[in-house]
Amino acid sequence: MHSRVRAQLYCAPSAVQLLKNAHLKIATMKPFSPPDPNFETRVRSSAGMQGVLSTLGAELTLVRAGEAHLTAPFDMRFSQQDGFLHAGIVTTLMDSACGYAAFTLMPAASRVLSVEFKVNLLAPAKGQGFRAEGRVIKSGRTLTVCEGKLFSIEEEEESLCAIMQATMICIRDK
Amino acid sequence: MHSRVRAQLYCAPSAVQLLKNAHLKIATMKPFSPPDPNFETRVRSSAGMQGVLSTLGAELTLVRAGEAHLTAPFDMRFSQQDGFLHAGIVTTLMDSACGYAAFTLMPAASRVLSVEFKVNLLAPAKGQGFRAEGRVIKSGRTLTVCEGKLFSIEEEEESLCAIMQATMICIRDK
Amino acid sequence: MHSRVRAQLYCAPSAVQLLKNAHLKIATMKPFSPPDPNFETRVRSSAGMQGVLSTLGAELTLVRAGEAHLTAPFDMRFSQQDGFLHAGIVTTLMDSACGYAAFTLMPAASRVLSVEFKVNLLAPAKGQGFRAEGRVIKSGRTLTVCEGKLFSIEEEEESLCAIMQATMICIRDK
Amino acid sequence: MHSRVRAQLYCAPSAVQLLKNAHLKIATMKPFSPPDPNFETRVRSSAGMQGVLSTLGAELTLVRAGEAHLTAPFDMRFSQQDGFLHAGIVTTLMDSACGYAAFTLMPAASRVLSVEFKVNLLAPAKGQGFRAEGRVIKSGRTLTVCEGKLFSIEEEEESLCAIMQATMICIRDK
Repeated sequence: MHSRVRAQLYCAPSAVQLLKNAHLKIATMKPFSPPDPNFETRVRSSAGMQGVLSTLGAELTLVRAGEAHLTAPFDMRFSQQDGFLHAGIVTTLMDSACGYAAFTLMPAASRVLSVEFKVNLLAPAKGQGFRAEGRVIKSGRTLTVCEGKLFSIEEEEESLCAIMQATMICIRDK
Repeated sequence: MHSRVRAQLYCAPSAVQLLKNAHLKIATMKPFSPPDPNFETRVRSSAGMQGVLSTLGAELTLVRAGEAHLTAPFDMRFSQQDGFLHAGIVTTLMDSACGYAAFTLMPAASRVLSVEFKVNLLAPAKGQGFRAEGRVIKSGRTLTVCEGKLFSIEEEEESLCAIMQATMICIRDK
Repeated sequence: MHSRVRAQLYCAPSAVQLLKNAHLKIATMKPFSPPDPNFETRVRSSAGMQGVLSTLGAELTLVRAGEAHLTAPFDMRFSQQDGFLHAGIVTTLMDSACGYAAFTLMPAASRVLSVEFKVNLLAPAKGQGFRAEGRVIKSGRTLTVCEGKLFSIEEEEESLCAIMQATMICIRDK
Repeated sequence: MHSRVRAQLYCAPSAVQLLKNAHLKIATMKPFSPPDPNFETRVRSSAGMQGVLSTLGAELTLVRAGEAHLTAPFDMRFSQQDGFLHAGIVTTLMDSACGYAAFTLMPAASRVLSVEFKVNLLAPAKGQGFRAEGRVIKSGRTLTVCEGKLFSIEEEEESLCAIMQATMICIRDK
């Protein structure tokens, strides 16, 4: 033990040493502990107040601690010029999924707002319908970082169309 | 003093020297030269095919080389849970404005698609209407980088609600 | 005129009406009011503690309310594989400029940290030196949104190499 | 067939129907097929030419089709003002990991450049060392979308510090 301490005084552990170490423990994702046990009711009630979700025919198909999914049919009313779902509507679905994923972990007397997001469009959003997934990556007291995915659904097969990296903020009621 | 000047001949120009130089010429933005003189007709025709723009009641209010503006009224059908315009619809307007700004500089036989964008939401999008501005920052053969802004309009006053940084791609017809 | 006013009571103002209005007042940027009059000393002292800035030979060349500039010489020790400044070092300069732009508007007993940023690389970062500009777009109690620019300097001419959109957070000392 | 066509005329498949379908096949990630079998040699040779990687003491610890890892020790020369690794250096490691992940899938006579990236900083980058992972999400002829992660290593335990979403471009030699 003594020599180890001395070694640390004289040389920084090399990157390779650090990594080759057989006992390297990968940080395990702890399961989320939502402070509000009624988070699902709260999320569904908030989603019910989003005009845009009902206009898009979108439905919350999964709500669990740190995760929310939304599904919506394709609709030409929301297309871009080539007949695909517009990138902004793709964003709408992923942003709502991420926002509600974050909201599951916020306290009862709070609201959620999007601070910012970044979207990469991987393939044209064409299909009969779409499924958006939002997942919490890091939940903090004020800010929550999420990742979103959008899948198109065609002939019962899903394919990844877009990904999102987003920051949500918790606004506590006074 | 003399030796100091000589020293400067032999060592890389210091950051401060570079900047203090009185003759520093700031790169001036060259005006854009659209390869297709009929770019406005092409942009307006493409916008006319976007289902989402007509559904949102959005109109192209300005199209010039490297720039496009869109205006849309507020509509509760596109609100989020607090009654503001949904961040995804804010994105839809800015993405379309950026896409068409980029499209003004693309050749006649081409299409424009969004590669990716990043949005920061600065203030709740509430107002009677909204104006999105898209501007080309760098136009390349394949990729075009744009910045977008969304202003809310309330009582004839505009305020900045959101900003976008976006990459568009030119798909040439074969 | 009377019927027009009545019409406005019954139908939402159209986008075009809103925009055509001659009296439309563009929201003017209010000058920033830094809560700490000694912001420049505070910013310079913090920059002096950044190991990376001294390693890069970077210097704060401008600090004013809501804005900070940094300049650094080119150095092969920080190149990528083609001999340009590495995109991560380009980011380092813009992130520091944005962080200090935000920090000028924060209270005396606080720290600044980057929440997130997005960078578009517009041209290879080659030149004798580089200048990064950071500017506050929206300053809030907790979050501040900034935009950054990186210019390369070659033969006393500057050209835009990269742009950043960033969110900074104010951590108040307890 | 006839009744199916008729059904499509009268009702779009509801989102819920689409999702409840028991046979829904999730698109499986196909393994990547690198066009250049010598991709690892090519990646390692390119990394050897990055001045910044050797300056940071970074090493490529894994290179496989669509994935690359880099490890680097902590070094006060690259710290920000609180003694953590600077966000720009965190970015340097993730950007290089993502760039090389993309480069594994590019042809022999090509170069890789970063188009853009977005970084969320989840926790202060403190530790004895750091490990960056880059992974290809979507590989195209011209553009490749990657995701990056940065872990800090402390007492043989890793924890997630930052995430990246990035676009890389393939420049083919003429």
